[in-house]
Amino acid sequence: MNDRPSHDVWDELRALSTGERVEISDDAGHSWSGTVVPRHDFSGDRVLQLKLESGYNVGVRIQPNYRFRRIPSSVVVAAAAPRSPPPAAHADAGSWIALLTTGGTIASRVDYETGGVRPVKDEREVLEFFPELEAGGRVRIVPVFDRLSEDLVPEDWRVLAEKVVATFGAGARGVVVAHGTDTLGFTGAALSFLLADLPGPVVLVGAQRSPDRPSSDGASNLRAAVDVAHDRRIGEVVVVMHQGPSDDRFAIHRGTWVRKMHSSRRDAFRSRNGPPLGFVEAGKVVLEQAVRPPVVGPARFDGPIDARASLLWFYPGLTPERAARFAEGCRGIVLAGTGLGHVGVDHVPWIRAATEKGVVVAMTTQCLEGNVEPYVYATGRELLRAGVLYLGDLLPETAYAKMVWALGHSSDPKVVGDLLFRDRAGEFHERHDARDSA
Amino acid sequence: MNDRPSHDVWDELRALSTGERVEISDDAGHSWSGTVVPRHDFSGDRVLQLKLESGYNVGVRIQPNYRFRRIPSSVVVAAAAPRSPPPAAHADAGSWIALLTTGGTIASRVDYETGGVRPVKDEREVLEFFPELEAGGRVRIVPVFDRLSEDLVPEDWRVLAEKVVATFGAGARGVVVAHGTDTLGFTGAALSFLLADLPGPVVLVGAQRSPDRPSSDGASNLRAAVDVAHDRRIGEVVVVMHQGPSDDRFAIHRGTWVRKMHSSRRDAFRSRNGPPLGFVEAGKVVLEQAVRPPVVGPARFDGPIDARASLLWFYPGLTPERAARFAEGCRGIVLAGTGLGHVGVDHVPWIRAATEKGVVVAMTTQCLEGNVEPYVYATGRELLRAGVLYLGDLLPETAYAKMVWALGHSSDPKVVGDLLFRDRAGEFHERHDARDSA
Repeated sequence: MNDRPSHDVWDELRALSTGERVEISDDAGHSWSGTVVPRHDFSGDRVLQLKLESGYNVGVRIQPNYRFRRIPSSVVVAAAAPRSPPPAAHADAGSWIALLTTGGTIASRVDYETGGVRPVKDEREVLEFFPELEAGGRVRIVPVFDRLSEDLVPEDWRVLAEKVVATFGAGARGVVVAHGTDTLGFTGAALSFLLADLPGPVVLVGAQRSPDRPSSDGASNLRAAVDVAHDRRIGEVVVVMHQGPSDDRFAIHRGTWVRKMHSSRRDAFRSRNGPPLGFVEAGKVVLEQAVRPPVVGPARFDGPIDARASLLWFYPGLTPERAARFAEGCRGIVLAGTGLGHVGVDHVPWIRAATEKGVVVAMTTQCLEGNVEPYVYATGRELLRAGVLYLGDLLPETAYAKMVWALGHSSDPKVVGDLLFRDRAGEFHERHDARDSA
Repeated sequence: MNDRPSHDVWDELRALSTGERVEISDDAGHSWSGTVVPRHDFSGDRVLQLKLESGYNVGVRIQPNYRFRRIPSSVVVAAAAPRSPPPAAHADAGSWIALLTTGGTIASRVDYETGGVRPVKDEREVLEFFPELEAGGRVRIVPVFDRLSEDLVPEDWRVLAEKVVATFGAGARGVVVAHGTDTLGFTGAALSFLLADLPGPVVLVGAQRSPDRPSSDGASNLRAAVDVAHDRRIGEVVVVMHQGPSDDRFAIHRGTWVRKMHSSRRDAFRSRNGPPLGFVEAGKVVLEQAVRPPVVGPARFDGPIDARASLLWFYPGLTPERAARFAEGCRGIVLAGTGLGHVGVDHVPWIRAATEKGVVVAMTTQCLEGNVEPYVYATGRELLRAGVLYLGDLLPETAYAKMVWALGHSSDPKVVGDLLFRDRAGEFHERHDARDSA
């Protein structure tokens, strides 16, 4: 131990290089062991950025009386063994996965000037922050966007899907997409429809907490996502995020079933209408539901898309005029109705007028779970007669992504409707009549 | 037992009067014991409508070989003892509660011609169906509407609130509002803001299954709601519905915290951002959270309202033009943004233009749980500078109802904003910074 409190330890610590390992102690018996990672743009506030053995990054504010010692690279600190040792199957030469970056918290750093979070400037920052990602095989970084996810639009889904196809074409075994969490559920659904004949997993992953925070989930989520991307049993689009309060359990959600259900919790992502497909625990991928297996490929972009669609949530007081104005210029409208799929009965005329002009109008429930069902109440029957398509238990967001996909495939509303009803990516759970449910 | 299978038992059963008690048996050893309740408009399909001892209503299709016996009124069938015996405190003369009916499943019957459900024609049908409601004291039926809840508009919230005030003025100890479940959460929030100085509970209740179904929850929900309406500790607006899969456990939700989270489950209603206020179990009301106590009164309608408000859910692909068009003519707009409260950054200009014209724009999260927080990401800070009000952990639906209430109270957007931020009905949970949450 460096044991000279009169000397300011910060002068030595700030000179450490990225990748060096240190243990820092204070007088109260607290200590931090970890690897030095690149520092932020903090100007002189004495913070050393460390990746702890737990996988979390933490900023330690160095007081003059702190002590430190270098950890020789041959010394294994407790719990420093990689949680996911590379399985033999992954060690074959040429096996690599791609990490597509799009921006968002998972690739963000705190901007200490504004106090907010900004996207990383250099995509290489990602691997510098998360060097252990390559424990299971090589990871190639493929920058696609550098944007907050609330700024992505359906056209970006197309770009991303085509990039995934190209990446598989270049030999990737699996693809991880690092994505802002705000609209990650939308993109998960969109890619599920826009990608076909997948030879491996496409794993969307995000972070709810930025990497400067002790509770950051970026590193651990990414590691779990990479574990899933190496899995040879999966040929579909999934979302991997923290499950429950645990630090080392991650859920594997089907891309069409998942929704962000909390603004800040690490386990904000939840499968709706059923359990997740599986879990990652201590680096082991456990599948509990049937998943779509990989095919020989080649992966295929199932476009084009047509973004002349909208998603409208009903509420008491929404007038037919306002709703019709909202829907102007759309070839497809997804309604998030109440309960079993209702809107005020005074909306029937504009909806009928729209469907008679060839606009495709589909119904989902703003409850977010359970089926829509037009036969139980008078309103449902009227909407059905007005040409509304009742889309089972699809999430409103999934139905909207599917609409954008389906509209791109035909100019005939009947064909679009057939595409909407047909299961394309495992998006429908077993269909059941809402009237018979327990 | 009537033991003559050659004789068609249906001729005798159809002649029974409402209120008579019978036990019906088939050859397979099944039997049904209960009270005869009014029959539906089924034309000759041999269905006897029974209220079982469990509280559920069931339609029994009578086969010619069924047998039956009348149960003398002095015979107590197993489990027929009232689950909520009238407490002494409820027995005082003049103690009564009001049951306001508005339509919806809880006051609906199956229309066998169309196969769907129609509202009851005669409001007295409710008490005929649920005679045990008066076990704890007199119940007066007050018809207000007869409409499906998706057809209610903010003006109906006003009518309902004024009726509640008048009912307390006439001496009611508590008020139950039977309401369709589709928009029950909206109405619960609206009444929470529109009612003040309550001398007793206002209990909204609905049914997820119509009374003709064996799993109907109308009778048991209503009984639990009446139990809560008799409670002398509650002076606020609550929602009482089934809790979990149990038949005799009911949650008491605060009107501003509750949302319908499943299209068909009986326990579809869930409190967000915290547990329910309490429960009803075996007729006993257990409060687990602090509730607003009753005041001497008189109850007061805290109007007027201004319904020139809208609720807009953001999604990728929503253009600023479409959003601005939607918001036309509104004095207040509630956004259900992504994550911590975001929309695409290209929406900032129309939002700024709106707030500069005096339109009140408020932000909530479409995640439905967790706080909104403008300081974490650049988009939030830009929206804040554009004048957007970040409303903590209010549900989008609650924020919209509060907007309609607040707009009615001032033409000054600053005053409206102050009203939105101020806790009015316990609608904010303890405010915390999203960045510090666990």
